[in-house]
Amino acid sequence: MARFAPPGFTGSPLVRIDNERDNQAYHDEQLARADAKLLRLTGLAPDVLDGGLLGWGPASEVAPDATLALLGLIDGAPHFVPIDPVQENGAQRSAAMSAALGQLKGDEAATYAVARCLIDWHSRHQFCPRCGKHTRPMRSGWARLCDKAAEGCGSEHFPRTDPVVIMLAEFEGKILVGRQKPWPQRNYSALAGFVEVGESIEEAVARELFEEAGVKATNVRYIASQPWPFPSQLMIACIAEVESADLNLDTREIEAAIWVDKDGVEAALRRDESGPFMPPPPFAIANTLLNAWVAGA
Amino acid sequence: MARFAPPGFTGSPLVRIDNERDNQAYHDEQLARADAKLLRLTGLAPDVLDGGLLGWGPASEVAPDATLALLGLIDGAPHFVPIDPVQENGAQRSAAMSAALGQLKGDEAATYAVARCLIDWHSRHQFCPRCGKHTRPMRSGWARLCDKAAEGCGSEHFPRTDPVVIMLAEFEGKILVGRQKPWPQRNYSALAGFVEVGESIEEAVARELFEEAGVKATNVRYIASQPWPFPSQLMIACIAEVESADLNLDTREIEAAIWVDKDGVEAALRRDESGPFMPPPPFAIANTLLNAWVAGA
Ligand SMILES: [Zn+2]
Ligand SMILES: [Zn+2]
Repeated sequence: MARFAPPGFTGSPLVRIDNERDNQAYHDEQLARADAKLLRLTGLAPDVLDGGLLGWGPASEVAPDATLALLGLIDGAPHFVPIDPVQENGAQRSAAMSAALGQLKGDEAATYAVARCLIDWHSRHQFCPRCGKHTRPMRSGWARLCDKAAEGCGSEHFPRTDPVVIMLAEFEGKILVGRQKPWPQRNYSALAGFVEVGESIEEAVARELFEEAGVKATNVRYIASQPWPFPSQLMIACIAEVESADLNLDTREIEAAIWVDKDGVEAALRRDESGPFMPPPPFAIANTLLNAWVAGA
Repeated sequence: MARFAPPGFTGSPLVRIDNERDNQAYHDEQLARADAKLLRLTGLAPDVLDGGLLGWGPASEVAPDATLALLGLIDGAPHFVPIDPVQENGAQRSAAMSAALGQLKGDEAATYAVARCLIDWHSRHQFCPRCGKHTRPMRSGWARLCDKAAEGCGSEHFPRTDPVVIMLAEFEGKILVGRQKPWPQRNYSALAGFVEVGESIEEAVARELFEEAGVKATNVRYIASQPWPFPSQLMIACIAEVESADLNLDTREIEAAIWVDKDGVEAALRRDESGPFMPPPPFAIANTLLNAWVAGA
């Protein structure tokens, strides 16, 4: 097994207390504890303290009309986040957010990811997709109910996570990285796309590589995964051996793509100006994937 | 790499024409072709022909007011499915459905999975979760639009796929299988649970094993994946080495769990009456996982 650093947004110390989520008395007891913590946010952006730590206040700071989700326990203390709708567009990352992510420690970023996914999901799911009625939070903020008592259909709704495959094509000791038009010059990364209904991870990897780059996968191997909270993906990183290096790019998706050998990837990961490209940031799993490939994964 | 048969619901010959989905003229042209096919369904259940094939009729059979999704091309011919809401509960599998699944060839079941996930998603997502307005199909049936022209918010919505981890704990040459109360006597399978927001595949495996069985994972390895169309999961199968064989079952989730060695798993996979348990059916990835473990994965 090749050794590489754990992906970004993983390693949270949070213990999710799933089995108490439908116990409102438990939620209330935890909230009343003197050591109960509340995540400090500006819109959707976290407060980042010295040392790359998340800023938490006492739960008593909470606005009287706020709705809270119980994220879980950290070092035995309950940690909450407000889940009232926010206006910020969850799909976009602001410059401030990118800066915050660059500063947050990995395991702190992982805890932030949980909070952010929940807030964002509540913001974008105030109504029932089955019947159109207003829904309300339930299960300590981990679900929403279309309440029959409020003339809803009674259905329960759970936070959505969209699986995405992200992959390197591999051919004769080189891997393929591509770039999208809006990206800074020289930035390249792994290709990626949403897993569609009715396909496996391996099928999604093969389909995306063929659609975007015209290369045919003969073997797909899983490498690693990470949650990605913009707004809520599960990134599934793979390497796919392909039949040939000939490319047929879908230029609506990919502006350019290059084959890079191990020396080139190592130079890129050092952010060497003379390297063949600039890599994605360390908290992106595409970076993990490049490191894993260099390490022999 | 250990050899094992591909998981159920994979291997569809369907070529998804993703890049033409927003081209209504392409959709209409395909529908007008003499070789255009329409999936025959009773509710959500497929017609299964001799040889385990799906039943398709000519697209001209379609009801005049039906809405169709273009699944893609099979052997160059366009294949469609009606996506008007159906009343059947997508989360449930009827006895008729189980029988149909037992008869369908693997690659035919895979094509059915795509169709079924789409129909079911449209049925359960007629309204916009952002604003509650009625939405309408777009992108050849692969999305829904909350139309500003109909006083909606303009948001687009895509079929939902929920990632689920399914895993065998492994300790000193044995693996752990568990059973739920409603299952037929002697039926055991791998443990499983939804991946939550803000966690990786490996973290979800470790969390579920600890919550359901009280075992601590020290290493998680990915084995295989499959789509599961009841209603729309991505099943991600893993094996997790654990610290100890001591169990602490969450009996609300798991009625009983047993450690089984290789001989026992082989007997179970043969459906040997003297074996330690009855395994899940071949089209379930838990069956693939047991076969993969026996093969050394
Ligand atoms: Zn409803
Ligand atoms: Zn809307």
